[in-house]
Amino acid sequence: MKEIKVGIIGFGTVGAGVAENLVNNHDVISGRTGINVKLHKVADLDITTDRGVKIPDGVLTTDTNSLINECDIVVELIGGTTIAKKFILQALEAKKHVVTANKALLAIHGKEIFECAAKNNVDVFYEASVAGGIPIIKSLREGLVGNKINRIYGIMNGTCNYILTRMEREGVDFEPVLKDAQKLGYAEAEPSLDIDGFDTAHKTAILSALAFGEWFGMEPLHVSGIRDISLFDLKCADELGYRIKLLAIIKNTDGNVELRVHPTLVPKTAMIANIHEVFNGVMVDGDTVGETLFYGRGAGRKATASAVVSDIVDVARNIASNSIGRVKCFTESKLFNRLVPMDEIKSRYYLRLTVEDTPGVMAQITAILAENNINISSLIQHENNDCNKKSVSVILFTSIAQEKAVQKAVTAIENLSSSLDKVKLLRIEDI
Amino acid sequence: MKEIKVGIIGFGTVGAGVAENLVNNHDVISGRTGINVKLHKVADLDITTDRGVKIPDGVLTTDTNSLINECDIVVELIGGTTIAKKFILQALEAKKHVVTANKALLAIHGKEIFECAAKNNVDVFYEASVAGGIPIIKSLREGLVGNKINRIYGIMNGTCNYILTRMEREGVDFEPVLKDAQKLGYAEAEPSLDIDGFDTAHKTAILSALAFGEWFGMEPLHVSGIRDISLFDLKCADELGYRIKLLAIIKNTDGNVELRVHPTLVPKTAMIANIHEVFNGVMVDGDTVGETLFYGRGAGRKATASAVVSDIVDVARNIASNSIGRVKCFTESKLFNRLVPMDEIKSRYYLRLTVEDTPGVMAQITAILAENNINISSLIQHENNDCNKKSVSVILFTSIAQEKAVQKAVTAIENLSSSLDKVKLLRIEDI
Repeated sequence: MKEIKVGIIGFGTVGAGVAENLVNNHDVISGRTGINVKLHKVADLDITTDRGVKIPDGVLTTDTNSLINECDIVVELIGGTTIAKKFILQALEAKKHVVTANKALLAIHGKEIFECAAKNNVDVFYEASVAGGIPIIKSLREGLVGNKINRIYGIMNGTCNYILTRMEREGVDFEPVLKDAQKLGYAEAEPSLDIDGFDTAHKTAILSALAFGEWFGMEPLHVSGIRDISLFDLKCADELGYRIKLLAIIKNTDGNVELRVHPTLVPKTAMIANIHEVFNGVMVDGDTVGETLFYGRGAGRKATASAVVSDIVDVARNIASNSIGRVKCFTESKLFNRLVPMDEIKSRYYLRLTVEDTPGVMAQITAILAENNINISSLIQHENNDCNKKSVSVILFTSIAQEKAVQKAVTAIENLSSSLDKVKLLRIEDI
Repeated sequence: MKEIKVGIIGFGTVGAGVAENLVNNHDVISGRTGINVKLHKVADLDITTDRGVKIPDGVLTTDTNSLINECDIVVELIGGTTIAKKFILQALEAKKHVVTANKALLAIHGKEIFECAAKNNVDVFYEASVAGGIPIIKSLREGLVGNKINRIYGIMNGTCNYILTRMEREGVDFEPVLKDAQKLGYAEAEPSLDIDGFDTAHKTAILSALAFGEWFGMEPLHVSGIRDISLFDLKCADELGYRIKLLAIIKNTDGNVELRVHPTLVPKTAMIANIHEVFNGVMVDGDTVGETLFYGRGAGRKATASAVVSDIVDVARNIASNSIGRVKCFTESKLFNRLVPMDEIKSRYYLRLTVEDTPGVMAQITAILAENNINISSLIQHENNDCNKKSVSVILFTSIAQEKAVQKAVTAIENLSSSLDKVKLLRIEDI
């Protein structure tokens, strides 16, 4: 049986999970593939801390050079965009195949890494970089290969989905839920990467590149996070049959592609609105397959390990059948016309206004909307029961309108003397 | 660019869809793969009927021999287990790769076909045989390759799911909904293959073989369909928070494997309970990845074509990179201990009893359940408001019990003089 040596750089949460999976399920993998996929080395600066994984003697090392030298497949699991990049390029130059879960690195430096892989005729696989254990990359570029991609909607950040789920279920505001999520280990001490949408954006950059054949990077993405979502917003959305999710939106309308990440109102009846807690889900709408949904754990030691191991086995199968590059790590092939600037997108909108509770205000607001050709599809204004309160919240749902016009209207409303706070603008997707 | 010639045998609904996809999305596929996947021939007995697809001149033929002779990949889309088998074996013996959507043929004759493929060193792919456009086979044997499979739950027959969805939503009984489904083309004139569970069973046989490395065939499967599900059953299930779905159940408990297809009560909160209409969904629970769900259209011209084309491209990539057999069409590798006979399974049960509305009946029933060590977890008996009606329905939900004991109790209850009808037995899965 052909032996393939695997070396893991980074013995953290995911690294330990991958090592454990390769050891515990070694026989399952060899039974299914006829290949001896062997954990040869695991490198980390710290090789004394107990990670709760029993791995064979002699596997742990601090020496990444020997690891790269001795292994067929190098698995990068340290994260970040500096040392990780150095190790990956070093492995590629040494003609070693690379498996990584590093979404930030690929979103930003993907082109350089893939060019280096092509030059050295080796594979780079990265299933675990998007939506953890869900085989979405394989599904997109193999399972749905015959499809033009119309739309992808993704809930791809477990931290955000966990926070929004708890806010909605328990009726608690953002800050206390974030604090609790941090205590429970579902959110980082520095949570910005997750809650400000950047992690989702990295994954969006990867999926959109695979869908449309151009490595866009981060620059064309509109990104906003969930920090400003209040419990009141969730309640207003709920009242009209919607939930708020941090959604990756990749849309292709006759070759015009939108790439954006923002909190989005989605109808409660949509499958994707029913993805709760830390789970991830990606809806792919292809011209042939129609609507599909892929659901599972988007993070965590074991689920991420499942995806990393599937990549390791893919490379091992390529080595065993002498077919490196059978599915290229990335294929440039422009399958769209142009990227739509954010100003030009069309959407339905949720606008929450905080205004004076006095006569004439609604007339001013509706006049501004009319001037900007924005139609109101529904409106909530509750009775002001607090006689001391001089402000009132008005929630507007619009029909389809252009972003530019809506932003202009929002500015005009905020400039009214009766306006008491910034307008909260959220977008709606009627999936 | 390498050219791969594709021949389709069978120009019916799916055949036309595949031809259309290969022609319309030819540039998408070549852009992504660097391979010219060319529709070379389409064979059918009837080549005059307009299938609404524009295919190049000279492609249509009645001559399957030349098709097999001239093409690299032969796509069998005529269905059935006789002529289809003949064509597939002929193609394999001619050293041609085969793509098929034929679940019945594979479930029954899979071993023979795979042996023939191995002997001739060619590929046989069959993604479209299970759950239409959903890439579940690729996900199972590649995307989740490092996982021991604990459970698979599948809604894999669109006809049954459509009927159950409409019964539940509209409060209409089975027969009229079936008739309407037949009118709309969602059910066959002879609906047995679908509604009696055999189609789902064929798919279950295929998924279980891939999960556990043995081509089980149909023999070990317990199969029952939805013909006897009444609106009253749906309502009783609903009252306790459940829906009834025709479920494929593949379960591995410490190497003891259960394979069954039957109508099943699933909690409304489970993702799989929220798959409606003709849609399919497969939940896979692996030891590493945890719970995943794959959702999409399980049938129809376009969705099925999406899966067939993904197989065609997989073979084309293997031809182009000279890696035939890279992922074997089936790998024997026993990953379980034994199959559990139906008598020995343990489940929760829904029992609907029709009994005399007289004193002492409930005492008799509960005594029988107690004798068989069956615990009642909940019970519904509604007030009998019709004073002329001498019968009453009693709905019991049991705790976990053994099938054998439950069947014994059911027989004993049916033998009571106060029992007025057969007991309706359904199983519950608290997913």
